[in-house]
Formats: sequence, structure tokens, C-alpha cells
Amino acid sequence: MELTVYLAGQIHDDWREDLQAKATQKNLPLTFVAPQTNHDRSDNVGDDILGEQPGKVYKDDAASSINNLRTQILMQKSDVVIALFGEHYKQWNTAMDASAAMTMNKPTILVRPESLIHPLKELANKANVTVETIDQALDVLNYIYE
Amino acid sequence: MELTVYLAGQIHDDWREDLQAKATQKNLPLTFVAPQTNHDRSDNVGDDILGEQPGKVYKDDAASSINNLRTQILMQKSDVVIALFGEHYKQWNTAMDASAAMTMNKPTILVRPESLIHPLKELANKANVTVETIDQALDVLNYIYE
Amino acid sequence: MELTVYLAGQIHDDWREDLQAKATQKNLPLTFVAPQTNHDRSDNVGDDILGEQPGKVYKDDAASSINNLRTQILMQKSDVVIALFGEHYKQWNTAMDASAAMTMNKPTILVRPESLIHPLKELANKANVTVETIDQALDVLNYIYE
Amino acid sequence: MELTVYLAGQIHDDWREDLQAKATQKNLPLTFVAPQTNHDRSDNVGDDILGEQPGKVYKDDAASSINNLRTQILMQKSDVVIALFGEHYKQWNTAMDASAAMTMNKPTILVRPESLIHPLKELANKANVTVETIDQALDVLNYIYE
Amino acid sequence: MELTVYLAGQIHDDWREDLQAKATQKNLPLTFVAPQTNHDRSDNVGDDILGEQPGKVYKDDAASSINNLRTQILMQKSDVVIALFGEHYKQWNTAMDASAAMTMNKPTILVRPESLIHPLKELANKANVTVETIDQALDVLNYIYE
Amino acid sequence: MELTVYLAGQIHDDWREDLQAKATQKNLPLTFVAPQTNHDRSDNVGDDILGEQPGKVYKDDAASSINNLRTQILMQKSDVVIALFGEHYKQWNTAMDASAAMTMNKPTILVRPESLIHPLKELANKANVTVETIDQALDVLNYIYE
Amino acid sequence: MELTVYLAGQIHDDWREDLQAKATQKNLPLTFVAPQTNHDRSDNVGDDILGEQPGKVYKDDAASSINNLRTQILMQKSDVVIALFGEHYKQWNTAMDASAAMTMNKPTILVRPESLIHPLKELANKANVTVETIDQALDVLNYIYE
Amino acid sequence: MELTVYLAGQIHDDWREDLQAKATQKNLPLTFVAPQTNHDRSDNVGDDILGEQPGKVYKDDAASSINNLRTQILMQKSDVVIALFGEHYKQWNTAMDASAAMTMNKPTILVRPESLIHPLKELANKANVTVETIDQALDVLNYIYE
Repeated sequence: MELTVYLAGQIHDDWREDLQAKATQKNLPLTFVAPQTNHDRSDNVGDDILGEQPGKVYKDDAASSINNLRTQILMQKSDVVIALFGEHYKQWNTAMDASAAMTMNKPTILVRPESLIHPLKELANKANVTVETIDQALDVLNYIYE
Repeated sequence: MELTVYLAGQIHDDWREDLQAKATQKNLPLTFVAPQTNHDRSDNVGDDILGEQPGKVYKDDAASSINNLRTQILMQKSDVVIALFGEHYKQWNTAMDASAAMTMNKPTILVRPESLIHPLKELANKANVTVETIDQALDVLNYIYE
Repeated sequence: MELTVYLAGQIHDDWREDLQAKATQKNLPLTFVAPQTNHDRSDNVGDDILGEQPGKVYKDDAASSINNLRTQILMQKSDVVIALFGEHYKQWNTAMDASAAMTMNKPTILVRPESLIHPLKELANKANVTVETIDQALDVLNYIYE
Repeated sequence: MELTVYLAGQIHDDWREDLQAKATQKNLPLTFVAPQTNHDRSDNVGDDILGEQPGKVYKDDAASSINNLRTQILMQKSDVVIALFGEHYKQWNTAMDASAAMTMNKPTILVRPESLIHPLKELANKANVTVETIDQALDVLNYIYE
Repeated sequence: MELTVYLAGQIHDDWREDLQAKATQKNLPLTFVAPQTNHDRSDNVGDDILGEQPGKVYKDDAASSINNLRTQILMQKSDVVIALFGEHYKQWNTAMDASAAMTMNKPTILVRPESLIHPLKELANKANVTVETIDQALDVLNYIYE
Repeated sequence: MELTVYLAGQIHDDWREDLQAKATQKNLPLTFVAPQTNHDRSDNVGDDILGEQPGKVYKDDAASSINNLRTQILMQKSDVVIALFGEHYKQWNTAMDASAAMTMNKPTILVRPESLIHPLKELANKANVTVETIDQALDVLNYIYE
Repeated sequence: MELTVYLAGQIHDDWREDLQAKATQKNLPLTFVAPQTNHDRSDNVGDDILGEQPGKVYKDDAASSINNLRTQILMQKSDVVIALFGEHYKQWNTAMDASAAMTMNKPTILVRPESLIHPLKELANKANVTVETIDQALDVLNYIYE
Repeated sequence: MELTVYLAGQIHDDWREDLQAKATQKNLPLTFVAPQTNHDRSDNVGDDILGEQPGKVYKDDAASSINNLRTQILMQKSDVVIALFGEHYKQWNTAMDASAAMTMNKPTILVRPESLIHPLKELANKANVTVETIDQALDVLNYIYE
């Protein structure tokens, strides 16, 4: 059974490539989808497509409208969501995506470091499974195929 | 027409009392509901009710299960949600509640300071209305009754 | 049985007051809700609440975000929708509201003059009932209580 | 990931063929579906299949019932909707389709000329993304695959 | 706890009045709603409100559009549905209403005479409870309050 | 685009084979599914699988539970439903299936002879399209591919 | 804010009366609803209303159809569900009701003794909150009003 | 038409392998999915992936969170559910899965021995079909393809 996995979370390192490589090693029939991971492109896509906007709030709104369209399409096609929090950045997008997924009844795995246990406690409680590393997240996905 | 308003957001100052007082001055037929605003009680309610848990992650999970039950019940009874972000704290609960509300088709007003425009841009784009002050949020609610 | 009726449609004459007066004469237990019918206020509410926006597209987007919030809240509280088209103006809001109502399974009565039969044929086919006058629309509501 | 795109909007020029040709050039794995674009056939299909109806309102109702069936089937199979408004015609079908799509949580891109910013402001605010040209709409779809 | 009960079924005798009288005797807090029970009015309501239609199929379609609006509004307000079949008439409306109710997760009690067990077997299997008399149907409603 | 079509309706002649043969001639990419069309097997399947039941009502309930399971599975997999009424038999199953389909937002084509216009008027009004012959129903399906 | 609480679970002692008395002492604005708690009546209600059935399986099916109707009506009217497991009996009804409630997004509190932690682990994980005593369940409800 | 079948129920014998072998003999195009059937792995998976938990309740909660994720993913991909009860063990998981399936409108076949008729009567009434052996369950699945 093939499953599509949406990878929500920060885009400042290559955790998605790492996860995909390990899934390939395990021969898991998973397709991964994700938000735009090129940070500059993600911030500028509104101006890139629609032309220069009159100030930062309008530039941000234009970019986020296109990012949100992408996320909505790909998340609706997904069977399961992994949402990863790191120790830096505000990551409200990640919280938004994880909560949207859980409210849509998409099974969701939360990945967060030990240092964030307290501030993420309500999200962790609402997620199906909460783990600390992407290896553990992959172990959970692998378990579906055992 | 009476409306119930869920007030998501930080619990470190009395913005809810401020908003309610102003709504009363305007004679708006609004009922406000909210998460537990006593911070210690919110953190300890799991241990308070279930007994001491074996360590911080379990204490947090117990407390958050009860906080999430409260939020789910009150949000399901609400007609509109106001989600307020301040300049401090991680506020992932607020992002979670706002996203859950929007995914459930609860009309949602986001309140955030100018300094947070960029990190909240996807949430702001997804919200029905985004404002900077609770007075503006109340102006929006008042507009429903004009 | 009390019913709430959302009155979608143009805001350039007082058809809503006319309908409400006739419903009162018939002693029907109906509560009517509607969009903002003060045209200037409807166009300016974004700037009025959020401050002046940088140009017309932004002013329009700010105003419409608040108008859409109002419509969503009131339509979700409604049991039936009347959507009236007149011979002037583009009235895409009316088409949007009627279609949203029907997609949400809100029973919908379409009111349109004979001159608009052809361009409104798909909306008319999708509506529960299509009539030509508000008196006929009220006759339909009255029939629920016979 | 293959996506199906419903192309709502006017049927008086060949914007759909233009869009499809450009998508093919970019090698995007998109399948496009659309309403009947032969205007006469769209108007006459009721009489064509069911026989001559007794007057224009009945001819229109018969045709629109079949057009609406086609739209409902194809839109339910689609992952994303593009709704294009031009400067001519009433285009209430387009507004109806766009609003139905958004209410069904189908991600929707609105295409409209600058001259229609004001009358389409509520639909534009409710759409995920609003652009002015089909090239921009295609840029948005292309972004999903970056 | 007050409940609203939709009474679907034939309109050729006064079984609804009988049921209501018995419910009143038992002091059950039930509100009953129903389709138009004046048969001529039900058949003619389209012409009565919209004017004379060009032939029987159009007269029937006009009347049924208004009858269906009434049914949809009242059934959406109901907590439970009783659908009664008698030995005469085709009663496809009753089958339509019962099936719509069950598909909408409205708890449904089917009342049918012994002679109709076989042709109603699939509807009876799908209903929550199947009985033979309105007294039994009322016993079932009464049981909710024991 | 391949579509699956559920063929609800009487099982006393071979209208389904006729329809399928004509669809094959037109090269339409349609898959047809249907209830059990062997009448004896349909009536006896409960006893066949579960053993003899104690009387007719129990035999009928056992058979219909299995017929309803089959219908629910196949209808959920379908994109469009054709429901055919003939001049004989009570056909309450057909009314039940058509109404369930429409309530589930499955686009539905009703086929009925002229003689049944009046008793089927509410079902016909609720259906997307109503025709008199299976050739017309196939013309409607064919129109989706034009 | 008044809330309705469905009390699922065994009917062999008076835990519901105990809970209600304690809720009254705390002045909580709660309305409690429940299945039939008279065990004999619950087992015999099918025969009582429909007449004697031909054997135990049919008697049980008749009774359970009426019990399930009652549960469905009352649970749909409820805002929160408490499901209590005791140390005796199979209690599959309780598991069924708790799971139905959670799947319908009704917030659910599971009450179970320490001895049942292992066999109830999946239900406990899926519930919003799991406690060991009805006093703890009431503390959780009380927390909503703090 | 290929169907996916979720096999809920006890994991203490090889009834799933037996069922699959018989389905293969009949050449039915069925794909079977199931919970983890290695009992030790199912009980320990939380500790296996997340590390040792502080006591039995936490170990059980960790394991069940991963088991529940697996069940939710596979059940959402399924077209039909078979839930088997045996004479031993508490099997509350099976009741939970069957009830979740039925509440999600997944057609469900209940398999239970004669000795469990009474305690399973409400679940049996709510299931689409109730049988006593897996051969009968397979006969029901086979009937869909006749």
C-alpha cells in the first residue's frame, strides 16, 4: 500500500532529504511532499508572480497566499503528516499545518526536541504520536508495513 | 442575534477582560469563552486531578489533555474565534487553536502586532480578518451588528 | 418554529425592509439577517477599521475580508437563504453567496427578473426554488408554516 | 504527483487551449477539465437530449440541469480550480462555480483583469490566490512542483 | 430534553393528528413537523405561487420544488424522523424522505403494515427501528424519556 | 477521465446490459456497477449465507442487510448514479438508492416513463437531470466527454 | 454555558445518580442523559414494543435497535461524553459508544479502574482524557467552568 | 473493482491468513490490511521506538498511540471492514475499531460466535451484516462481485 506523507516544518536544514534517503534504504513505498523549501523563493513568490507589492505586509500576504494554496493541495492528497519543530525560529506555520492536518483527521506525527516539551504540550497531546527524532518518525511509518 | 466568541491566545495579561469590558460598553450581545487563564492552574491541572505524574513530560501531557478537552468543547460551541498573538512566548497553542478554528470553518480574527507580520504571514492570510489591536477586533465584531 | 433567513443580494434599494414589513404583517416567526446595506460603509470598512490602505486593490481586499467574515457568521446561523438579483450591477457577491449557501446545503430561494432568466439559468437550476418577486419568495416561506 | 484542474469561466475565447499548451510546454503533470465550451451546444443541450421544451425558461432549465451535472462530476474529481473572469458578459456561472469550489475546500485561483478588481473584491478575498493573467495562474500551479 | 420529530409519509388520512394527540396524552416534550398535508395545495402550490405552468410536467416540477424546500428546512431542524407507509399509493416521497434522513444520520423509525414487509425490506433494514403501528412508534419515542 | 456509474433500479429486465452495450459502442470510459440482478439470489442471499431464518420477515431482513452492504460499498466508489423506474413494482429500493445518492452529493440521473411524472415529481426535482429513456441517460453521460 | 453530558457505560450500579448529585452540589449547569438503566427493560424493550420475537437472537436484535436509536438521538444532542468501564461484564456497548463519540468529534472522558489499563489502552489513548474515578471526571467537567 | 478490506479483531490465532487464503482461492480482487498481529511487538512498540517509559500506564499509552496511528491510516484507506470477535479476551479494541468504522460510514461485517450474541447485540444491530464464521464473511464479500 503506497502512502503519501506531507512533511511540515522548518526549511532551514535538509531534514527532509535525510528522511527520504532513509525511507529509500528501507524500501518503504512512501511518496513525500512538502512546502517550498527554498526560503528566499518562499518569501518572494508573491512578488515574483504578481509583481512588486506596496510594502512588506502586502508582499508577505501575496507570498503566503501562494504558499497556503500549495500546502492545501498537497496536504489534501496526503495520507499522513509529519510535523517537525526545531529549536530555532517561531515556526507558527508548522503549528498551523499540524493543527490543520489533525482537524482534517490526517494522522499526524509530531517531531520535537526535548527542550520544547513544555511549549508544545497541547500540540503533542493532540497529535497521534510524538517523537524526538526523524529516525523515530520513520520507525513509526515503518511499523505500518510490518 | 447572540454570538459566542472564543478568545484564543496568551494568558499573561488581562486582554480578555479589557475586550469584554469594551464589548459591554457597546452593548454587544456577545458571550466570551476562553482557555484557563490562570497559568499555574493550566500547567498543573493534570497533576491536580490525576495525581502526580512521573516527570515533566507526563505532567505536561496530563495537563494538556484536560486543556485540550476544554478548548474543544468551548470552540465547538462558538460562532467566531479571536486569536491574539503578543510579542513574547512561543504561543504555539494560539497557532494551533486558530488553525483548528479555521479548518472547522469557524470565522476567525487574528490579532498580532506589526512586529510579527512576517512570521505570522501564512496564518494571517488564512484568517478571515487580521488586525493589530483588540479594539480593531471589537470593531469587526461590532460591524456584524450594524 | 422560528427560522432565520439570510437575505443575499444587491444593496441599492430597500427590498429587505419591504420583505420584512410584509413578513411582519403575516405574523411569520422569521428573523432576517443580511450583509451591510450601507454601500459606502461596506466599501470603506477596511480603511475605517484598519487605517488607510496603499491603493484601491488593498482597500478593497481589506473591506471584503470584513464583509466576508460577517456573511460567513450570519449565513452559518441561518436556516434558509433568499438571494435576489436585480437588473443592474454585476452582483457577483450575490452569486457567490447563493452558491456558497447551496453548497452548504442551506435551502435557497432565488429571486430574479424575467430579463435575467438566461444568464442565471445554472444558478436557478441549482437553487431549490426560483421566483420573480419578493412577494413570491415570501409566499414560499409562508408555505412552510401552512 | 498528478493533479486535475477544473477550468471555470467564460467560453467565448480559447483561453483554456492557451493554458493547456503552456502547461504542456512546462511538462507539468496536469489534467484539465472544463464545462462545455461550445456555446450553442451548451445552450441547446436540454432540447437536444430531452426534446423541445415549451418556451425559453424551460429550455434554459433543461440545458442548465445537464451543464450542472457535468460541472459537479468534474469538479468533484478535481484537485484545484481556476476561475477566469473577462471584461464581458455577466459570468454568474463562473462566480457560482468558484464559490462552490471554495465552499467544498477545493483550492481556487481567481483570474480577473484589473478593471474588475472592485466588483470581484469579495470573491477575490475568498479565493486562495488572485491573479490577473493565465500565465500567472500557471506560474502558481508550476510553483506546486518546484 | 425537547425533541423535534419530522413525520414523513402519506397525507391521505389523519395519522399525524392521531399521533400528536397520543403524544400529548403522554406529556412527551415533542414538537412535530411535517410536509404539507392538504393534498390539493401540495399539488398546486407551484402554480399558486408562480402562476400557471405550461403543462403537467412543469406544474409538477414547480410544486415539488417548493415541497422539497419545505421538507429540507424542516428535516434539518429535526432530531428524529418517523416515516409511515400505508397500503395504497406509490409513496416514493416517503421512501425519498426516509432515505435522505438516514443518509443525514437522522435517527429514523419506519412504520409499515405487515403486507409491505417484502417490498420495504431494504428500507426497513436501513432504518434504526421498524414497527407496524404508530402506537409502536410512539412507544419507541416514549422509551427515550424513560 | 474514467468514471464509475452505479445503476440503481428494477432488476426485471436487461436494461443494464442494453445501456452497457451502447456505452461500449460509443467508446465511453465508463465502469458500471449495480445491485444483484438475479432476483431469486437477491431475495435468498440471507438464508443462503446465514442459514434458514425463522420466517419471512427475518429472511427478508437477512437478505436486505447483505444487499444494503453491497449497495453502500459500490455507491461510495461511484462518481455518478443512474436510477431507473419502470411502470411495474413498488421500486422503493430505487427511491431509497436515488435519495441516498443525492444526499451524499453523488450526481444523479433519474430515468422514468411519462406515466410516472406525477408520483415521482419530488424525486425528479431533486435529481440533477430527469430523462425518460436510457438512451437519453447515456446522452447525458456522453455530454461529459464532449 | 449549559452543557449536555452523555453518560455511557455499565448499568449495574448507580454511578450516574452519584455523579449527578455531586454535580448538583457544585452547581454545575450540566444536563445528563444516558442509556436505559433498567437492565430488564433494556433487554426486553424489543419484545415489549414489537411483540415476542422468534428466539433469542431476534429478541436481542429488536431490543438493541431501540436502544441504539435512543443512544444516537441523545448522543447527537450532547456536548461531551463520559464513558465508564467497571471490572465486570464485557461492556462492548460502552466501547462502541465511546468510539462512536470520539469519531463524531464529541469530546470524551474515559473512566476506568487501574486493573483495566492494559486492555483499554487504545481506547484510553484515543479519548481526550482518561481518569480512574467519577470524581476525577467531574473535576474535569468542573475545570471547563473555572 | 478492487476493494481494500480492514481486518479488525483479535490477534491470537491466524484467522487473517485463513481468510486471505480462501479469498485467493476464489480469485477475489481484495487487498487485506490489519493491525499489528505480533502481540509482543504490538505491546512493546512504544518502548521499542520511544525508549523505556516510566511504568506500565506510560508504556501502554506509548504503544497504543502508534497502534492507533496505524489503524487510522489503514482504515481510512479501506472500503469495507471485517471485525471478528472470539470467545476469549476483552477485545475492546475490536469494538472500538468496528464502531469507528461504522461511524465513518465504512460498511462493516461483524463476525461473532453464537455464544456472544447477547453481549454484542448493539454492535451487531449497528453493523451492516453480522455472521458467525469467516467463511460467511467471505461469502458476503464474494456476493459483491456476483
